[in-house]
Amino acid sequence: MIDLEVLRGSYTKSPSKIVMLVADGLGGVPHPDTRKTELEMAHLPNLDALAWESACGLTIPILPGITPGSGPGHLALFGYDPLKYFIGRGVLEALGIGLELRRGEIAVRGNFCTVDGKGLVTNRRAGRIPTEQSAPLCRRLDSIQIPGVGLSVHPVKDHRFVLVLRGEGLDDRVNETDPQQTGVPPFEVSPQAAEAGKTADALNRFVEKAREALQDEERDNMVLLRGISLLPHLPSMGEVYKLTPAAIAAYPMYRGLAQVMGMRVVPTGSTFKDEVETLRESFDEHDFFFVHYKPTDATGEDGDFSAKVKALEEFDSLIPEVRELKPDVLMVAGDHATPSLLARHSWHPVPFLLHSRWTLGEGIEGFSERSCAGGSLGTFPAMQIMLLALSHADKLAKFGP
Amino acid sequence: MIDLEVLRGSYTKSPSKIVMLVADGLGGVPHPDTRKTELEMAHLPNLDALAWESACGLTIPILPGITPGSGPGHLALFGYDPLKYFIGRGVLEALGIGLELRRGEIAVRGNFCTVDGKGLVTNRRAGRIPTEQSAPLCRRLDSIQIPGVGLSVHPVKDHRFVLVLRGEGLDDRVNETDPQQTGVPPFEVSPQAAEAGKTADALNRFVEKAREALQDEERDNMVLLRGISLLPHLPSMGEVYKLTPAAIAAYPMYRGLAQVMGMRVVPTGSTFKDEVETLRESFDEHDFFFVHYKPTDATGEDGDFSAKVKALEEFDSLIPEVRELKPDVLMVAGDHATPSLLARHSWHPVPFLLHSRWTLGEGIEGFSERSCAGGSLGTFPAMQIMLLALSHADKLAKFGP
Repeated sequence: MIDLEVLRGSYTKSPSKIVMLVADGLGGVPHPDTRKTELEMAHLPNLDALAWESACGLTIPILPGITPGSGPGHLALFGYDPLKYFIGRGVLEALGIGLELRRGEIAVRGNFCTVDGKGLVTNRRAGRIPTEQSAPLCRRLDSIQIPGVGLSVHPVKDHRFVLVLRGEGLDDRVNETDPQQTGVPPFEVSPQAAEAGKTADALNRFVEKAREALQDEERDNMVLLRGISLLPHLPSMGEVYKLTPAAIAAYPMYRGLAQVMGMRVVPTGSTFKDEVETLRESFDEHDFFFVHYKPTDATGEDGDFSAKVKALEEFDSLIPEVRELKPDVLMVAGDHATPSLLARHSWHPVPFLLHSRWTLGEGIEGFSERSCAGGSLGTFPAMQIMLLALSHADKLAKFGP
Repeated sequence: MIDLEVLRGSYTKSPSKIVMLVADGLGGVPHPDTRKTELEMAHLPNLDALAWESACGLTIPILPGITPGSGPGHLALFGYDPLKYFIGRGVLEALGIGLELRRGEIAVRGNFCTVDGKGLVTNRRAGRIPTEQSAPLCRRLDSIQIPGVGLSVHPVKDHRFVLVLRGEGLDDRVNETDPQQTGVPPFEVSPQAAEAGKTADALNRFVEKAREALQDEERDNMVLLRGISLLPHLPSMGEVYKLTPAAIAAYPMYRGLAQVMGMRVVPTGSTFKDEVETLRESFDEHDFFFVHYKPTDATGEDGDFSAKVKALEEFDSLIPEVRELKPDVLMVAGDHATPSLLARHSWHPVPFLLHSRWTLGEGIEGFSERSCAGGSLGTFPAMQIMLLALSHADKLAKFGP
């Protein structure tokens, strides 16, 4: 995080308010028929007007050419160096289903698989059984007990589940059990560091008891464990920046990520309208708001260009309600691009705008990948967004005499 | 400083000449009435014509969102990493009144204050007494003697003075004495590192003798010491870049900063016209010239938009005289923005132009924040300006085979 020793004394408390709207997967690439991106095809009168008055640029989530997952993408937005702070796959999966993890707890991405009579894996995903079938099996696993370690098992979707371990001295420096091929047995868990012996032992016991519990099943008769990870300890955003940050997010994973960074999660509904309403209701209580908008990413991942255009237009339609609150700094950012043409996250620079009374208003014609490239902020690391936001909000003092 | 090991052998001597005009506090933000910045309101025929033929861009003094003081702002312009090299507040104050410091000397920002009969601070600034009253008190302090350490005291303005310590083994890792509140005694100076014991001891003795020397005063009966700092040892700009750099600056602080970086200070008068005349007279003797123009910052800090416009026009009017000298590289840069609307330094990117026979001339319409955003140099760290200047002047060889 932008927690440079030299800046320690520079973050200052002030009554001003900052709103960061994060449209997940915001950027795109041009459709081959029109040579226009989703942002360029969408009718975005409110974002366009806002961009005109704002400081604009393109953000690089991690490094040019690096496609971020949701974890690193969001860490960067709040000033955490995504190459330094890591949120493991198991933890992210747990946050994604709304589990509340505590420091020192280990989360694991598990899935059911099929083994033959000799214990060799014949199907790594047990034929992707539906959740209705896997949920009762999860309840069976959830009742497993291991001395000295608490555990719980939570269904995710289809053949996937989350295993959480609780106890003293857990350590995630252990290998996964998925052999990544069939015809071989699952790996044993081995410690990769001296301190990880207890965790490896607990996971091996869990696997053994899971095998027993599932032995009568035809297909789902074994488990594979991946993404074994500790909830990381991140510096608290509020403490470092002297903010009382709040997160408003309809999707559980983003609430979880925000909590790991030390934000207070404000309960909200399932739509962006709900989120904006929650922003309005809680506006007096906080000085920093992260508002997460998921549909731009979801439609992009679906590869549905016109659905992403519509998702952008829905996002745009509520910008006036946000502006009515008159935040001192209003930003529109993305954690990464999710071009519909790729149907997945990408490495492209992401459009960004920041509006405050101190912005130049460089007259950017429309909020898009192309126009933001001409903005005064240039193409810059997402990790530096918070420094800009804090300065524009008069919360970051001069550096050096 | 851009003193990368890999570039060591690449800086080469050549007869070409580089002129860097630094308009202090160059950038601004738009006036709410006109939505135009100071640069956009000013009539700048010469800068506009120069920008048309130049490579243009915006420079980031330190990091996006970081507002630099004058020290870090200038260090960056000459390629010194402002997060690595630090010029302390005491040193800057000493340079600001024209003191010549040597390596190993300590400079302290002092001020008179009022303490009551129990030694508790009742007024941290002794009611901001005028310089006429504080100067005789400074002479009294100047006569204080401490065994093993030389010292001198110099009036600054109002209640402020500079204390300089000279001697072997001085170290600035000590705390300040200003308690930042009234009703408590000043802090003792304590060493924050084992090597700083001698300095702490000398400063405590100075404070004790100052208290005795001032005991009959009603208001100015004590001193507070802040910004205790050693003159840092910076690599010499001339040695690293193989230049014979000269500084032409009407204001003492910028002469002092230039000296710390290893430039020769050429005596000059008090106006920009004097500075340009000095440039002309000394043009044969050096291959690099830093010419500092203060009024753009001073008017910005005063919050006087139209005065800053006039200061820019005055700066513009002498551009033809500089161009007549036909420097191989001519740059116009700023150490930071000082928007009149903020009336202080800011974090905004700063307009920059570089003109040489090798510049594209991207046809920038006018020299301003908005137009420079579209230049070929993009928005880039000020610390990289020197690399551009040296290459355009044929003083930086190819990197790698």
